[in-house]
Amino acid sequence: MITKQQVVQAHLPATLTPRDEAEAFAPSNIALCKYWGKRDAELNLPINASLSVSLAHLGTRTRLVHATDGRDRVWLNGAEQAADSAFSQKLLAFVDLFRAGHALPVHVHTQNNIPTAAGLASSASGFAALTLALNEWLNLELAPAVLSAFARMGSGSACRSLFEGFVQWEDGIRDDGMDSHGVRLEASWPELRIGLVKVATGEKAVDSRAGMKRTIETAHLYQSWPLQAAADLTRLHQAIGEKDFALLGQTAEQNALSMHATMIASWPPLLYWTPDSVAAMQQVWQLREQGLALYFTMDAGPNLKLLFEAGDQAQVEQAFAGLEVVAPFSA
Amino acid sequence: MITKQQVVQAHLPATLTPRDEAEAFAPSNIALCKYWGKRDAELNLPINASLSVSLAHLGTRTRLVHATDGRDRVWLNGAEQAADSAFSQKLLAFVDLFRAGHALPVHVHTQNNIPTAAGLASSASGFAALTLALNEWLNLELAPAVLSAFARMGSGSACRSLFEGFVQWEDGIRDDGMDSHGVRLEASWPELRIGLVKVATGEKAVDSRAGMKRTIETAHLYQSWPLQAAADLTRLHQAIGEKDFALLGQTAEQNALSMHATMIASWPPLLYWTPDSVAAMQQVWQLREQGLALYFTMDAGPNLKLLFEAGDQAQVEQAFAGLEVVAPFSA
Repeated sequence: MITKQQVVQAHLPATLTPRDEAEAFAPSNIALCKYWGKRDAELNLPINASLSVSLAHLGTRTRLVHATDGRDRVWLNGAEQAADSAFSQKLLAFVDLFRAGHALPVHVHTQNNIPTAAGLASSASGFAALTLALNEWLNLELAPAVLSAFARMGSGSACRSLFEGFVQWEDGIRDDGMDSHGVRLEASWPELRIGLVKVATGEKAVDSRAGMKRTIETAHLYQSWPLQAAADLTRLHQAIGEKDFALLGQTAEQNALSMHATMIASWPPLLYWTPDSVAAMQQVWQLREQGLALYFTMDAGPNLKLLFEAGDQAQVEQAFAGLEVVAPFSA
Repeated sequence: MITKQQVVQAHLPATLTPRDEAEAFAPSNIALCKYWGKRDAELNLPINASLSVSLAHLGTRTRLVHATDGRDRVWLNGAEQAADSAFSQKLLAFVDLFRAGHALPVHVHTQNNIPTAAGLASSASGFAALTLALNEWLNLELAPAVLSAFARMGSGSACRSLFEGFVQWEDGIRDDGMDSHGVRLEASWPELRIGLVKVATGEKAVDSRAGMKRTIETAHLYQSWPLQAAADLTRLHQAIGEKDFALLGQTAEQNALSMHATMIASWPPLLYWTPDSVAAMQQVWQLREQGLALYFTMDAGPNLKLLFEAGDQAQVEQAFAGLEVVAPFSA
């Protein structure tokens, strides 16, 4: 088995020349065709290719400072995190891949501007921003595709957050995963809007990593998931190429529901939906029956992310109070 | 294509000798491994074998009276139904298969004692009772397996309602479907209890027939459903043989959720759950985490059917107000 350490090592210079500090930003991303299932749990290599849209200004800004006090320290949204917290440990383990045994103490300042309760994972933008900041801090001058593959090893979907706009995460075939990274699509869609519905806060009972594992091991239906994902990717490319919003929305919604279906078919059953999630879905379907071009996607959580176009924004905002709206392709 | 008429014709005597009247009862049944998908829509031949438990005294009683007024008439729970109602038309079309063109006017009195709002389909017990009553009325003296195959042509799951206790509906391989009928299992399970949770009333937006069709045509995940069903049948036989209640409950619950998963993965999405359904599921899971051996199954509707054993009945009734409890194997 190839380890993360081996993969990163192969791309590092003989000597590291760290700057005093470095800073980077990476956006969150919403998958229109989901990443669900790993073919390699160490490197986060996916069973299927996926496709997302990045959320412009919503994401994570991370600053790395070469520590003069000789200690690794981590701040999240201004609050210092305990050294033994899961957050600090996971983050510093990733930094260690790049320090490769050298004594390079660092202070990590991480700032998320993702609205609380919107159910957006911050690990994607977090590991993407951290990877970009490490590239700056250590003067690595690595290509975006390489950095994307590195970010993937922190959190799978982080490899898509290296880029703006529509991004495809190639599944790849290499054992070291270096061909499994994000690729930005040329297309733009200025009218596209994403609405974040606030359904629930609180920690997830089962995280995505454990959820994927359970699904693959116990749900017979998962066997057909790669077929669904492959068909949906083709349809999404067609929808984006022709700017066919109904096709984009339908494909994204069916893809998300199919992913949830594989979880629901697992044992023990994995249902991220709350009664409020179901009520929100039914509201979307009712509005659509009334003629509104409104669709949703959901990740491994109870929240809906609405998909619509700029012309319908007023109507959508009226139906969903407190909606946070993102325009992924606006300047 | 073989028609229903041809199938029944092949088993009728040259001359029909109707009695003045005949009466029969058939129980409802709850599938522990679901029937979901037809390989022949005319004859209701299933893609997968299924397994149910009959609900003892809950079901349909049907009386046929050779009509002296020369007219076909239909009563449901004491109320005469319009001749052009869907109920009358479907019922009389089934009677026509047996009258085979002879002038045999009939009055049909159908009585369901299934609790309203429990989400139990009455078509299974209805067509089973009607088939049994026709066998009596027309003096056909047909074997239970033949009658079960006939009942299947009225409503697929009706073939299981011909029998008490655990019943397997064989998928069969014949084009005329005569090997696709219910078979009673020898086993008994006196402690088994089924609790009917009342979640919602009202007509279903999409009936099972249309739901199956949509699922097969649009859900990639459906391709794995027959695998799930086959594995679950094996496990149910093991559970029944060893009286392993946890295995029975787990298998039935995962089977039902997998069926719903195939619907959720369809387009347009087919979600029979209401927010109340999700709340009830979560209540079951919570009670199970607390150690109660409680499981559920669901058909193509919002209602939960609880599975538990006699020793836990008081605790289950306390958690679910207004629960109707059935003991399928009590005298």
